Amino acid sequence: MFRINDNFTKLPASYLFSEVARRVKAYTDANPGVEVIRMGIGDVTRPLCPAVIEALHKAVDHEAAGESFQGYGPEQGYAFLRDKISLYDYKERGIDIEPDEIFVSDGAKSDTGNIGDILSTSNRVAVTDPVYPVYVDTNVMGGRAGELGEDGRWSRIEYLPCTSENSFVPSLPLSKPDVVYLCYPNNPTGTTLTRDQLKVWVDYCRDNGVLLLFDAAYEAFIREEDVPHSIYEIEGAKDVAIEFRSYSKTAGFTGIRLGYTVVPKGLKGLDEDGSPVELNGLWRRRQTTKFNGASYLTQRGAEALYSEEGRRQVKETIDYYLENARMLRVGLAEAGYEVVGGINSPYIWLKTPATMTSWEFFDYLLERYHIVGTPGSGFGPSGEGYFRLTAFNTHENTRCCVERLSLK
Amino acid sequence: MFRINDNFTKLPASYLFSEVARRVKAYTDANPGVEVIRMGIGDVTRPLCPAVIEALHKAVDHEAAGESFQGYGPEQGYAFLRDKISLYDYKERGIDIEPDEIFVSDGAKSDTGNIGDILSTSNRVAVTDPVYPVYVDTNVMGGRAGELGEDGRWSRIEYLPCTSENSFVPSLPLSKPDVVYLCYPNNPTGTTLTRDQLKVWVDYCRDNGVLLLFDAAYEAFIREEDVPHSIYEIEGAKDVAIEFRSYSKTAGFTGIRLGYTVVPKGLKGLDEDGSPVELNGLWRRRQTTKFNGASYLTQRGAEALYSEEGRRQVKETIDYYLENARMLRVGLAEAGYEVVGGINSPYIWLKTPATMTSWEFFDYLLERYHIVGTPGSGFGPSGEGYFRLTAFNTHENTRCCVERLSLK
Repeated sequence: MFRINDNFTKLPASYLFSEVARRVKAYTDANPGVEVIRMGIGDVTRPLCPAVIEALHKAVDHEAAGESFQGYGPEQGYAFLRDKISLYDYKERGIDIEPDEIFVSDGAKSDTGNIGDILSTSNRVAVTDPVYPVYVDTNVMGGRAGELGEDGRWSRIEYLPCTSENSFVPSLPLSKPDVVYLCYPNNPTGTTLTRDQLKVWVDYCRDNGVLLLFDAAYEAFIREEDVPHSIYEIEGAKDVAIEFRSYSKTAGFTGIRLGYTVVPKGLKGLDEDGSPVELNGLWRRRQTTKFNGASYLTQRGAEALYSEEGRRQVKETIDYYLENARMLRVGLAEAGYEVVGGINSPYIWLKTPATMTSWEFFDYLLERYHIVGTPGSGFGPSGEGYFRLTAFNTHENTRCCVERLSLK
Repeated sequence: MFRINDNFTKLPASYLFSEVARRVKAYTDANPGVEVIRMGIGDVTRPLCPAVIEALHKAVDHEAAGESFQGYGPEQGYAFLRDKISLYDYKERGIDIEPDEIFVSDGAKSDTGNIGDILSTSNRVAVTDPVYPVYVDTNVMGGRAGELGEDGRWSRIEYLPCTSENSFVPSLPLSKPDVVYLCYPNNPTGTTLTRDQLKVWVDYCRDNGVLLLFDAAYEAFIREEDVPHSIYEIEGAKDVAIEFRSYSKTAGFTGIRLGYTVVPKGLKGLDEDGSPVELNGLWRRRQTTKFNGASYLTQRGAEALYSEEGRRQVKETIDYYLENARMLRVGLAEAGYEVVGGINSPYIWLKTPATMTSWEFFDYLLERYHIVGTPGSGFGPSGEGYFRLTAFNTHENTRCCVERLSLK
């Protein structure tokens, strides 16, 4: 009889957001009329900007007439979009990324998940801790994680703690991994690394033949000068790094789906004979074989983001969220919480008071202040004792959240 | 240094459609002014129907206002769509498929490619020959194919020839495979299997613990009573089969991307201990971890296909293509060609005359008649000596194609 991939059965149930939803429902059922403020799930709330809406309507009309109808597009994305990405996201920042190094997809979650297809299952992986769970779970599925220990750590994955003890700056790995995932601005902590701090990582990867998988999904929230928008701002990064980008948080595309991945030419891994092989060609083959391109509509929508109007409108929306982040950061600090994030990021990461666990603090916030956040322990062992709030809400609700949390 | 997935380096370059394009360009460059009729690539040409266009515009407007804005949707697809699929594509045909057995995605190519994620790499695979190349290539990537022989066959894949010698009806496998891919109506041959013929396969899979991966992407072209629209019309199929569906050819969604996959509850494979594990939960985990849902816009577009208007409009478009298929089938048969397909399918599969190879016939058609098709050898060893024409063109061009091919 046919066999399943046993790695899937090793994965414990993913219960973070369903458990959050269950507890919120139990509370609101028991307390009708109480107004709960949701600062938990990292989804945007502001509508798509007018430039995108206009482009989407136009693209729909293209699909309505034979002469403008668009069927199968290039699996790696339309040139009209990849050219603009190359120009505006890279060349204008002095980074030489060509259109044929860019692969447009339905989102960064797909790409960070699927990138393992082109890598050997023998590679050892390192992740920061806390971490976006997709990096870990997809390596479990791919057979790279080993066994799950009682401490919540997988035996073949190195966890690089990011806590207040090291100011949320991960140390270099000790275990000689082959692949490292970094996400900056970071989900869930909202922290960033400076140019010099990222250079340490690029140099380390170059010196040790390590592939750096760099998730820059929150790049649009960066406002400080010394925080790189792309890993390729660091010299030598094109030899070691794949970069993942997303329009989800940048432009509110969580519902209409679009992202892209940069696989620079010249970035090489070893085959079984020890010969170097370019990853760009491998990813191209993966995408042309297992993917049929992102929606034409969404690609036209993304193209509009690079117009003068589009760029201004995106900035306005991000500024709106960043003002929420500022309110949370400043207000909670004033209220006595230990807080990081929220400067170049929509995420606020706070230390739970006294000896409360993340889930105890979740219940406490919900019952006492009627506020929903996300327990840090859901993001990995080093997230225990922390809590995530997001800036994806209205000014009014955010202000109200700060006021409630300031009540003693 | 980090290692790549060596299976990728085993794949020969995929050159079928690029070689077609190269030869066409060389010919048209050398013969300016000659009007070439393209009957090669299997992409639709008719615009989206008015019901879909209206739904897409409405969905775009939802994304323009805060109160109707849709962010992350359920990874398995919105209930508004899955409920309609369950009702109209299954229950109305007397098949009990529930919404939680349906997983909406960005297309059948992604799903037929990614399904290997949940299956052991030790499984042995059988495919019909000729075949949609994605089934073979993704199993090469997944390490199930063995080595490529000089005859163009992979050592661990069983090829089930479908040629005029067996009237294009595949024999049951001889090698005891664990997984079988069937695509009916078939790409590339355009042939179908009757209810009784499919029952042989379902019974075989049940008796031998074989997983049946059934690709029904061309289901909408079925017009004959005795040809099942779904594998689940066959008794017992829910215990052995996963079904892939696509809106690409059904409704012209090749550019806006949507499909779905049915993984029935109760369909089980063995884990390493020999215990049965439900595939529905594994695929759910795969999709929630490596995929973030299909575009809200496209899902609203697909919903409109199930309205009375939408169903009528889709039928009109398919009828248009089927009339082309009929013209090709009848006209080419009258002109003396040996032809199959084109009754419940947009594809016509013809035997190349005399001892011409597929590529020789390609050159002959291009040079003598200025018609572009697809060489059958591009779909597998048993495709040699055959040629594919598609019905995805205008009536006028199709008529002209038949007239040219009828010239002696």
